[in-house]
Amino acid sequence: MKKLFAEFIGTMWLVLGGCGSAVLAAGYPELGIGFAGVALAFGLTVLTMVYAIGHISGCHLNPAVSVGLWIGGRFSGKELFPYIVAQVLGGITGAAILYLIATGKDGASIGNFAANGYGEYSPDGYNMTAALITEIVMTFMFLIIILGATHKNTPKGFAGIAIGLGLTLIHLISIPVTNTSVNPARSTSQALFVGDWAMGQLWLFWVAPIIGAAIAGVVYKALAPAQED
Amino acid sequence: MKKLFAEFIGTMWLVLGGCGSAVLAAGYPELGIGFAGVALAFGLTVLTMVYAIGHISGCHLNPAVSVGLWIGGRFSGKELFPYIVAQVLGGITGAAILYLIATGKDGASIGNFAANGYGEYSPDGYNMTAALITEIVMTFMFLIIILGATHKNTPKGFAGIAIGLGLTLIHLISIPVTNTSVNPARSTSQALFVGDWAMGQLWLFWVAPIIGAAIAGVVYKALAPAQED
Amino acid sequence: MKKLFAEFIGTMWLVLGGCGSAVLAAGYPELGIGFAGVALAFGLTVLTMVYAIGHISGCHLNPAVSVGLWIGGRFSGKELFPYIVAQVLGGITGAAILYLIATGKDGASIGNFAANGYGEYSPDGYNMTAALITEIVMTFMFLIIILGATHKNTPKGFAGIAIGLGLTLIHLISIPVTNTSVNPARSTSQALFVGDWAMGQLWLFWVAPIIGAAIAGVVYKALAPAQED
Amino acid sequence: MKKLFAEFIGTMWLVLGGCGSAVLAAGYPELGIGFAGVALAFGLTVLTMVYAIGHISGCHLNPAVSVGLWIGGRFSGKELFPYIVAQVLGGITGAAILYLIATGKDGASIGNFAANGYGEYSPDGYNMTAALITEIVMTFMFLIIILGATHKNTPKGFAGIAIGLGLTLIHLISIPVTNTSVNPARSTSQALFVGDWAMGQLWLFWVAPIIGAAIAGVVYKALAPAQED
Repeated sequence: MKKLFAEFIGTMWLVLGGCGSAVLAAGYPELGIGFAGVALAFGLTVLTMVYAIGHISGCHLNPAVSVGLWIGGRFSGKELFPYIVAQVLGGITGAAILYLIATGKDGASIGNFAANGYGEYSPDGYNMTAALITEIVMTFMFLIIILGATHKNTPKGFAGIAIGLGLTLIHLISIPVTNTSVNPARSTSQALFVGDWAMGQLWLFWVAPIIGAAIAGVVYKALAPAQED
Repeated sequence: MKKLFAEFIGTMWLVLGGCGSAVLAAGYPELGIGFAGVALAFGLTVLTMVYAIGHISGCHLNPAVSVGLWIGGRFSGKELFPYIVAQVLGGITGAAILYLIATGKDGASIGNFAANGYGEYSPDGYNMTAALITEIVMTFMFLIIILGATHKNTPKGFAGIAIGLGLTLIHLISIPVTNTSVNPARSTSQALFVGDWAMGQLWLFWVAPIIGAAIAGVVYKALAPAQED
Repeated sequence: MKKLFAEFIGTMWLVLGGCGSAVLAAGYPELGIGFAGVALAFGLTVLTMVYAIGHISGCHLNPAVSVGLWIGGRFSGKELFPYIVAQVLGGITGAAILYLIATGKDGASIGNFAANGYGEYSPDGYNMTAALITEIVMTFMFLIIILGATHKNTPKGFAGIAIGLGLTLIHLISIPVTNTSVNPARSTSQALFVGDWAMGQLWLFWVAPIIGAAIAGVVYKALAPAQED
Repeated sequence: MKKLFAEFIGTMWLVLGGCGSAVLAAGYPELGIGFAGVALAFGLTVLTMVYAIGHISGCHLNPAVSVGLWIGGRFSGKELFPYIVAQVLGGITGAAILYLIATGKDGASIGNFAANGYGEYSPDGYNMTAALITEIVMTFMFLIIILGATHKNTPKGFAGIAIGLGLTLIHLISIPVTNTSVNPARSTSQALFVGDWAMGQLWLFWVAPIIGAAIAGVVYKALAPAQED
């Protein structure tokens, strides 16, 4: 239960911090943090949580990460489903807190609430194929980074930096394409508040990240010396 | 006394560096650092001080942090009050140095001097409820990061990175809401120079951060294996 | 073969991440990441890969790096040619994926596809001499950083941070001059998709980085205590 | 001699990287890196050099740092003068390379070449008193960070991160005041190329940083447990 509560808090922070920076601060006139600031914020949610709760739950914060670690032989299948439930509930809680804050001013509108989308809901108008490729490849590389940075042959302690800044990098590349998911829990929480088109496109942000993560699990296992976790 | 002097210097640096970057450099035409630069500056004041004075005083630099560590069982209650006094005096000294610099040009005005506020003094017009939620939740998560990154089961040495960049993250999210406090000493020093409305709203930036920090102390103790500090 | 596949994946990521951030996100209206975001992205591709595949292949991702390490006595000459082939193929694959994504919207044009150039193809109009000096000096310093950060007398584990952020620094300085190469594989992959002028100028981005890297190999060996790798 | 050559190369990199990013990339239309990018570049020159040459010379790269370490009991007085000569010569070489690159386009002008100044040569018009306070206090804190991050009680290996990002922080605060020196070698190299007013104001950027550094040497020795270096 402590593991699940840690995943809950961590994923709440990922959504509140990452999507929160996008909703509250990205477009502020003149001084706003832009996509680069949002990319940094998403990455730092993970970096901070790896050092805060990594020793409790492993700090997945993401159903695709849990699947990739499971396929890669680093995570027990028995825990997979409860982890995913805790992550989704944490994400929704983060989104709810963000909703409370974001609506706390006159004339507030949550806009797209940093939801993920493609086609006419892609920030820069990328089509569904581009979105699929992007989410598969980005999640594939995210898991390669995670599986490698936590490998027994890699120096201890640096995983939080590599993984957190890896998520920053992924956002620096792909926010214009899909608003960047690579995380079905984060997509689900935002889609629930936006409803409508965001719910209709949500399937892609479960399917593509999980495919990318699963392939990475297979590939990294073939690439690196075996290890027990 | 060495501990208190270290807290004094460190909090002076937090205010001079964080608020200084906001007052002097954020809005410079074309080349200014914006909210993202201010967020980085606040975080780096803490990151640098953890490595510089962490071994002397523990580097709290913040009354809410001292309270959270006390509730979380990592800091002795006997030292709590002197630490808070040293932090507030350090913050005021940092603000005084910044005042001297900022007024050293023709037609200078300190503006809002990076003071914290809500309602009409929120940078983006957020109301008191949004400010309360933001400051409580952000300080809660700040203490989760601090308690986790300094836990005995977390790799040694990385705490400064996680905590410093955690403060950067908190600013990336919440500058538009309250100018971001999560630190009553930082709020007090700026309010003293602005007076007026800033003094009137100062209560929130003591109450909310301390509530958030105290809850985190309880939660993290329940979540993680026990440790002596 | 595992080493070569690791170099392939890593260089694919360097091109997809670095050039991808430039092509997809740098110039997005209002919120774009600009040159600073691109600089961060290039550096983070290397930082993440050092922790992910460093223990497998050494994570060169760059023919000039392989040459510099060979001259500096840290890398076997026998592996030099296969490494370079794997890097170039990885770069081309990264560029191909980026091409697929970037063309996935109406009216898409790949523009200069982040190719490297001088004279009229320099972002800010720098001539061939300036480009030569820049690429030689920047690659020289890149290899000094790499040879130093991986030296036996340097604290273990930090190499990924120093080398990755070193590449970020190099981009912060020199994107306006040549779009920054310091990496013949990265230049080749982009030139192949742009053709024309980019192929005609490609020679400089093989010659200059390799000269700079080779000099660094000699200089660092003279400067530092000897070591077996 | 190896130590001096390492200081020469490192200070060359500090000037070429830090001032180079300012001259070449800060003001590029739309995509330029701004003051925040320049701040990051200055810090990363030091971060990268600490890991590259720290084990050879200690990586001072700055006469004020050498003085502060000497007063603080960490550096031998016998080496002080040769170190400062090597730093100044390195800085001049970095500035010369930058001059060659920056003038390599039609209609090029080196502008203020990132020289330090006050009064009408302060980027934002700050007077001499504000410049003096700023340079003294910023160098004081820079040395507190250096002396602390390299103290025997601080975790090993993190000094490069704390010191490098500390210099970034100092630039985030004070570029608008003096263009930020805290380093007489860096100020001298740029003043030599600008001549005129920059030579006339150069005294301040020797006097103020050295005063600040010397005070820090005394203060930190009083604050921290004694250590042999």
